[in-house]
Amino acid sequence: MAGNAAPAAVRAARSKAKPAPRNAFYAQSGGVTAVINASACGLIEEARSYGGRIGKVFAGRDGIIGALTEDLIDTSKEPAAAIARLRTTPGGAFGSCRYKLKPFEQAPAEYLRLIEVFKAHDIGYFFYNGGNDSMDTAHKFSRVSAELGYPVACIGIPKTVDNDLVGTDNCPGFGSVAKYVALSMREAGMDVASMARTSTKVFVLEVMGRHAGWITAACGLAATQEGEAPHVLLFPEVQFDESAFLAKVRTTVERHGYCTIAVSEGLRNRDGKFLSETGLTDAFGHAQLGGVAPLVAQLVKERLGYKYHWAVADYLQRAARHVASKVDVRQSYQLGQAAVRAAIEGKSGVMMALVRTSDKPYRWHIETVALADVANLEKKMPRSFISEDGFHITADCRQYLAPLIGGEDYPPYRNGLPDYVRLKNAPVAKKLAESFTIR
Amino acid sequence: MAGNAAPAAVRAARSKAKPAPRNAFYAQSGGVTAVINASACGLIEEARSYGGRIGKVFAGRDGIIGALTEDLIDTSKEPAAAIARLRTTPGGAFGSCRYKLKPFEQAPAEYLRLIEVFKAHDIGYFFYNGGNDSMDTAHKFSRVSAELGYPVACIGIPKTVDNDLVGTDNCPGFGSVAKYVALSMREAGMDVASMARTSTKVFVLEVMGRHAGWITAACGLAATQEGEAPHVLLFPEVQFDESAFLAKVRTTVERHGYCTIAVSEGLRNRDGKFLSETGLTDAFGHAQLGGVAPLVAQLVKERLGYKYHWAVADYLQRAARHVASKVDVRQSYQLGQAAVRAAIEGKSGVMMALVRTSDKPYRWHIETVALADVANLEKKMPRSFISEDGFHITADCRQYLAPLIGGEDYPPYRNGLPDYVRLKNAPVAKKLAESFTIR
Repeated sequence: MAGNAAPAAVRAARSKAKPAPRNAFYAQSGGVTAVINASACGLIEEARSYGGRIGKVFAGRDGIIGALTEDLIDTSKEPAAAIARLRTTPGGAFGSCRYKLKPFEQAPAEYLRLIEVFKAHDIGYFFYNGGNDSMDTAHKFSRVSAELGYPVACIGIPKTVDNDLVGTDNCPGFGSVAKYVALSMREAGMDVASMARTSTKVFVLEVMGRHAGWITAACGLAATQEGEAPHVLLFPEVQFDESAFLAKVRTTVERHGYCTIAVSEGLRNRDGKFLSETGLTDAFGHAQLGGVAPLVAQLVKERLGYKYHWAVADYLQRAARHVASKVDVRQSYQLGQAAVRAAIEGKSGVMMALVRTSDKPYRWHIETVALADVANLEKKMPRSFISEDGFHITADCRQYLAPLIGGEDYPPYRNGLPDYVRLKNAPVAKKLAESFTIR
Repeated sequence: MAGNAAPAAVRAARSKAKPAPRNAFYAQSGGVTAVINASACGLIEEARSYGGRIGKVFAGRDGIIGALTEDLIDTSKEPAAAIARLRTTPGGAFGSCRYKLKPFEQAPAEYLRLIEVFKAHDIGYFFYNGGNDSMDTAHKFSRVSAELGYPVACIGIPKTVDNDLVGTDNCPGFGSVAKYVALSMREAGMDVASMARTSTKVFVLEVMGRHAGWITAACGLAATQEGEAPHVLLFPEVQFDESAFLAKVRTTVERHGYCTIAVSEGLRNRDGKFLSETGLTDAFGHAQLGGVAPLVAQLVKERLGYKYHWAVADYLQRAARHVASKVDVRQSYQLGQAAVRAAIEGKSGVMMALVRTSDKPYRWHIETVALADVANLEKKMPRSFISEDGFHITADCRQYLAPLIGGEDYPPYRNGLPDYVRLKNAPVAKKLAESFTIR
């Protein structure tokens, strides 16, 4: 039935009873994770199921840059089966970016442009899926859009492997990295233990976490009793004490035959400098770029003489959808769903947050928190989660971390490899005459 | 019923009809893998099912060193359930070592000691689970034990992630590393693709393979069409051509927005030197130890200016039982089983080998090959498996590699992590008065 065929009076009554639903804009922001697409999946599926309340979901190509440049992706062009597969696909399906809006007073052009683009495409909802910076942007835009007379409902959906957002018990993306690094440590530890008598005695794994040691702490879950890998954790929250560290490594090797170490990329020396930025230079005198694991390993070799190996997990850890935490996938998906419901309920200026009500059995639900209380803050490891000597995690920390890696959620495989979806990412036709240049 | 209660005549008849079965010695050798324990599992389960043909299976604690030092593990003390769990447990359950026997003429003491230990524990079978060196040792011992009047049936069971043993279509252990590096490359590639517009444009993953590029080649399986990660493979078989490499990276970034690279730890420069041994020095002027990925990344940065990330998989790749290839697990297990049957059939001086009879569908079976034809040889990538420009794999290579990563074989999980077995590893009581010092 063609709508145009209805009599004018009926059309008028309809449009009165049911105003045309406004579209939504969804953007991924900052470092991607194994499960950020699960949030996209929950959000798009939920929006589709509320047909009539929310129009189309447009995604930003490469995050907020897509909004600024009017480079929108029409997710309604994707079949339901493709959207469903986002749940098991790592990375950012629409592209992400590192781009932070300045305060309105300093850079009004970007805000004005966003409103222009949102108006042109009848966008009334802005879902921003990211970390600290993104929550700050969502917060600013929520305020400014209202002030400028085009109020947009702004909802933050948390995401960060660093687990450092405040206002939520944990961050989607972290549980899967935690599971990956803990099992990698366990597996590598078994390898080293097998060979230690005549080969490698010290193994160092470098993990992410520039300022907060949550991922390093997660490595500690692999050790369920004294003597199991990892033996030493080096947190960014604990100033590196070289002699205490070397003494710990020596004792561990003497007692157990080998020593495994997880080190945060953000480990700092007594001067507060990143260890990774000290020490090595290439043949031309340039500082070597990145890699604290080789530095720690080399220190052990020089001072204690032990044979070593080291690994740097880098992107492997945050893209490891093949071994994602089931809890993490479920939470990410449900946060996407809940964001849509919150928007429909008329909420704005809020972030969806995870609230834990019980450790054992693990129970949680979703609430909203004000973006104003979340933006730009950083949650580090509390001292009570780090053992007295600074080299491991406490029972309290285990209790907090353990549920987050719970359960497996394997992707489908094809020809021996995970079968991840690639969306068509069809563009929405541009409506504005002017283009916008990203600074 | 106690055997001693039988009349003497019956006992004599029994012992005539059925001589006391001789025990077996099993040792793991060299770098361990995600599936070497699956071979141990197949071997021990098969030996148990042939009760009366083979006595107990003693394992060497830390490989052949356990035999030399009379430090034997009594696997009969392990319950069937624990042995079964070896199939899903990485690393070397009895310990492994890097220790190569010299020729008899140069170091007779070790051979004499082995025979002394084997005699003392009535060992008539020697199963050696390892790579090139181990096949050489098994070969030498087979010959010498016969010459010295105490013939021991010597059977090699192949194992090496490097896939460089001759005489077998592929090596157990390789398929699982291949699967791990290919899926890691795919996952990391999706991460980089998401962010390339404003962040990392070049990603480098370093994988194992000092002399043969099989693992690097396996990374190539992740790319199923032009433009997918990985874009560039750097093989040890192909001399590193800096300018051709940089041109390739630049073209790839210009065409696809990003470039992902898999590099073998054994990449060499024009002088035949390992790249990882050139270039970087620490503040004291010492050469930096290991890590070709950071060197390659830094070269790209200096010459092309692209932002980069790099990862070094190291032990994570060869211990990654959590995502083992089902084909690899099955082959490893069945090679262990087949070794027992070959020994019972009276074979010696042979290695169990995999023979491929069809690519599609993949069909294979197990045969024996003479250790003499295998020992100390190394199988590199044929030139026909490497693309003309030297930076990728050919269709022939894909055809060879594809079946080896087939199928998933997940370990059991407990509290969110793989639940790997730790055996009791009860020692066999020593019978010899003299100890033996490992040189």
